[in-house]
Amino acid sequence: MEKHVPKELSGLRGWLNRRLFDLHTPEGQRTNRFIMLAIVLSVFISMFGTVPDLAVRWQRAITAFEYLVSVLFALEYAARLYAAEHPRKYALSFYGLVDLMTFLPMFIFGDPGLAVRLLRVLRLLKLVRYLKALQLFIHSLRDVFDIMLVVAAAIFLVVLIGGNLAYFLEGEGMLDPPTFRNAFEGAWWALVTMTTVGYGDIVPHTPAGKVLAAALMMLGLTMFAMLTGTISVKIAHALSYHRACRKCERLISQEFVYCPFCGADQREEEDKED
Amino acid sequence: MEKHVPKELSGLRGWLNRRLFDLHTPEGQRTNRFIMLAIVLSVFISMFGTVPDLAVRWQRAITAFEYLVSVLFALEYAARLYAAEHPRKYALSFYGLVDLMTFLPMFIFGDPGLAVRLLRVLRLLKLVRYLKALQLFIHSLRDVFDIMLVVAAAIFLVVLIGGNLAYFLEGEGMLDPPTFRNAFEGAWWALVTMTTVGYGDIVPHTPAGKVLAAALMMLGLTMFAMLTGTISVKIAHALSYHRACRKCERLISQEFVYCPFCGADQREEEDKED
Amino acid sequence: MEKHVPKELSGLRGWLNRRLFDLHTPEGQRTNRFIMLAIVLSVFISMFGTVPDLAVRWQRAITAFEYLVSVLFALEYAARLYAAEHPRKYALSFYGLVDLMTFLPMFIFGDPGLAVRLLRVLRLLKLVRYLKALQLFIHSLRDVFDIMLVVAAAIFLVVLIGGNLAYFLEGEGMLDPPTFRNAFEGAWWALVTMTTVGYGDIVPHTPAGKVLAAALMMLGLTMFAMLTGTISVKIAHALSYHRACRKCERLISQEFVYCPFCGADQREEEDKED
Amino acid sequence: MEKHVPKELSGLRGWLNRRLFDLHTPEGQRTNRFIMLAIVLSVFISMFGTVPDLAVRWQRAITAFEYLVSVLFALEYAARLYAAEHPRKYALSFYGLVDLMTFLPMFIFGDPGLAVRLLRVLRLLKLVRYLKALQLFIHSLRDVFDIMLVVAAAIFLVVLIGGNLAYFLEGEGMLDPPTFRNAFEGAWWALVTMTTVGYGDIVPHTPAGKVLAAALMMLGLTMFAMLTGTISVKIAHALSYHRACRKCERLISQEFVYCPFCGADQREEEDKED
Repeated sequence: MEKHVPKELSGLRGWLNRRLFDLHTPEGQRTNRFIMLAIVLSVFISMFGTVPDLAVRWQRAITAFEYLVSVLFALEYAARLYAAEHPRKYALSFYGLVDLMTFLPMFIFGDPGLAVRLLRVLRLLKLVRYLKALQLFIHSLRDVFDIMLVVAAAIFLVVLIGGNLAYFLEGEGMLDPPTFRNAFEGAWWALVTMTTVGYGDIVPHTPAGKVLAAALMMLGLTMFAMLTGTISVKIAHALSYHRACRKCERLISQEFVYCPFCGADQREEEDKED
Repeated sequence: MEKHVPKELSGLRGWLNRRLFDLHTPEGQRTNRFIMLAIVLSVFISMFGTVPDLAVRWQRAITAFEYLVSVLFALEYAARLYAAEHPRKYALSFYGLVDLMTFLPMFIFGDPGLAVRLLRVLRLLKLVRYLKALQLFIHSLRDVFDIMLVVAAAIFLVVLIGGNLAYFLEGEGMLDPPTFRNAFEGAWWALVTMTTVGYGDIVPHTPAGKVLAAALMMLGLTMFAMLTGTISVKIAHALSYHRACRKCERLISQEFVYCPFCGADQREEEDKED
Repeated sequence: MEKHVPKELSGLRGWLNRRLFDLHTPEGQRTNRFIMLAIVLSVFISMFGTVPDLAVRWQRAITAFEYLVSVLFALEYAARLYAAEHPRKYALSFYGLVDLMTFLPMFIFGDPGLAVRLLRVLRLLKLVRYLKALQLFIHSLRDVFDIMLVVAAAIFLVVLIGGNLAYFLEGEGMLDPPTFRNAFEGAWWALVTMTTVGYGDIVPHTPAGKVLAAALMMLGLTMFAMLTGTISVKIAHALSYHRACRKCERLISQEFVYCPFCGADQREEEDKED
Repeated sequence: MEKHVPKELSGLRGWLNRRLFDLHTPEGQRTNRFIMLAIVLSVFISMFGTVPDLAVRWQRAITAFEYLVSVLFALEYAARLYAAEHPRKYALSFYGLVDLMTFLPMFIFGDPGLAVRLLRVLRLLKLVRYLKALQLFIHSLRDVFDIMLVVAAAIFLVVLIGGNLAYFLEGEGMLDPPTFRNAFEGAWWALVTMTTVGYGDIVPHTPAGKVLAAALMMLGLTMFAMLTGTISVKIAHALSYHRACRKCERLISQEFVYCPFCGADQREEEDKED
């Protein structure tokens, strides 16, 4: 979507395009680093606005900064819309919509309440644009998604069964006061136990409840070991198969001298006589 | 057990068999997705029945829905029994018994109490049928089971020794009030510490108890690192070596065109001219 | 130490030796399984003795069982001493000393207090004898020990620095009431945070303390990821290099047709013409 | 920096240089082990000084020991400065500055307060000098740093978004009393949840808050599984490919006798007749 500047965009449009969309040039990097700083700053300022003491004392500065940032993002949006190769495509893209949402609510509703404040946090989604490495990472993990879904489904099943069992063992009518006020609290406790988060807000009191907890801990640790193992294997694969064969262009290990698929020699011409 | 429909099953029986047992056809997927939805819904409704406020306000709706679902599952069971290739074999199979348990208690006992409510949750076991991927996963891990048993036995040993040591250090007669009221509480704390769950319901107060906790944490993390490591290695093996060579029948990577052991070509006849 | 019965031990001694030391025969397995059961049972009974209610109600039964088990272990010790190939070597071995400690204190001191009770738990160490797989496992990890020591030393360093820093930020004189009463509490909190146990008995209250906690969490997770990674790699190595070369007897991969060290062909004679 | 003693340093200077800088000689190891002991002891004594009871009772001994250690470290510094090959280079190096900081504040300010006490803990940084293995380890992980930065950035993003969402769901004006007093508390809770530390100081109370917690737990576990996986792969690579081929200079396994790329024999001349 954010391709290099093609030749036909020139003048102001080309200049803006390079500065806003092209992260491969020093100017583009400088502009975008400034925008990143503005995003993180504005989110922190917005969070300071939720601390009662600070919110009252700095109210004016916070509001002023908020308007300043909104204007800045509005200008950025206008500039991007003007400079984009396909303005309509940009406007309807994920980043285009996020860019629009970062200033529009401020201009329509002002700064009345919580919901608008939350929308401001969505500015952070603008940052995803710069986490190229993360996107590549996620992309390389795409074929692990079905295993992750299976693990998630298995956890969902175990949490529901474990939670109901917990409610059966230490719920209303079995223990007084009950450890779990309802089966949902049981499921919440089962999740907190399986993930080894262990807040300690709910803890089983009977021997049977503790045995159930032990089983959930072991199951959870095994399941997450499976997840870690699967991801490790996929990462190992992604990190070692990252050279395209000179002939068939399939991804092969950096270390192979001959392509295992088509047999083509991977050495440079001058290396062949080694 | 749930094979493709053989030719001899025709008419209504064949039609039902395809819809209920055959997950490879669109009709079969549709029917089974509807059953899955009914299972999850009925479990959630059953859990809502444990929340005092909701249980009173929605009592009628919940009971009505409960009967509806029970009738649905009874019909499903009857249809499966009628359409199965080997009805007796289905009735005695794991899934057959689970299917029967999902509606029978409701018709025999009505909705009196906790035990029947728990049986309702067992409906979730019907879902295991659809987690084919999970079954394959567990199957591929079968030879890790002995290592997992050894890890479990080692944890059992360390938890018992650690728990008794903890009781010796901060139990009745050593500390007032004692951190651990009996040796079982010590073992429970040792387990919660080793798995890094750390509820915080019991926390050591003396320097000696804290040193013991540190030892248990390090031991636990090392043990679970071993578990994760072993599972990772097995998954790596399962993911990369899962095709038998066409000639020597040794397990080789899915990606190899030629067997690295005997050199046999692994391609289908019609693919060879690629 | 526990070798197969040599020919010269015959009569009662040979019969006992097979039953007590030889885990490869069905009789030996039966005898040792009975001893294992007695060990686990006696430890659980001893733990029941620490629960005030049960201890009073079942006092007589517990004491009687305790004497019974002690006599049983004394008989086992005597039989092992008599049947061992090298009685003195057995008596001075780790297992010989553990076997002796499991009944001697009971006969000398009776059942007066906590310390003797703790010695009883040491009976569990007898079980280590049966965890052959665990011993092999630990053995294969011997060369990871130096990496584990480095990780342990690094954690020790970070815990001390983090703990003192924490005390500096939220200790006596900085916060009222102080989060940490002394620098040792700071170190304890740093350890509980780094291992992600998170009891919650001590939690930082100031922004600076929370930033320190975040740094400790990230450091801890990275360190334990390193530990898991190193152990995974070693396990992968141990699991894949488990066949001795037919000629040079070095450990090589199951999959190699030729030894990478001496070049010897690893195939059976009849397979060579494949 | 701490190279072997060159020939031209002789007499006292050479003798000191060997003892202080050369960890390959027995004398050097003995001197440095003594310094290590002094460092650890002095930090522990300094920590004892923060325990009110002990601080009062042992005040004189602690102060005396503190002066003793400061003098020892001053002498060590002077000796190192005198014996170093390039005294100015040592004085300006990381270790030189740390060595200076371990005694200077004591002589300038005496023992007045917390800040000086904290500086004393920096003595532990002197120990980093001896953790060669750790330095090698960190060095071999240098190319994982960008992945770790991406993971850290992703966690930062999720913590900010999750924390603001949490404040929106259970903050001031939404729940009474609010679970989170401001958005920063939300971010702190999100971090504690994602890392599975789970102190339990803040726990969500509404169904929506608990669903958010579940999402954060799963995201956190997946992210740290990625981190573990990446580190595992890098360690596997570092442990197996760390010798350059004698002929083609590509990295190959330590265990290979022949280079798998060019076939060159990797043995020393005198080993070839093995």
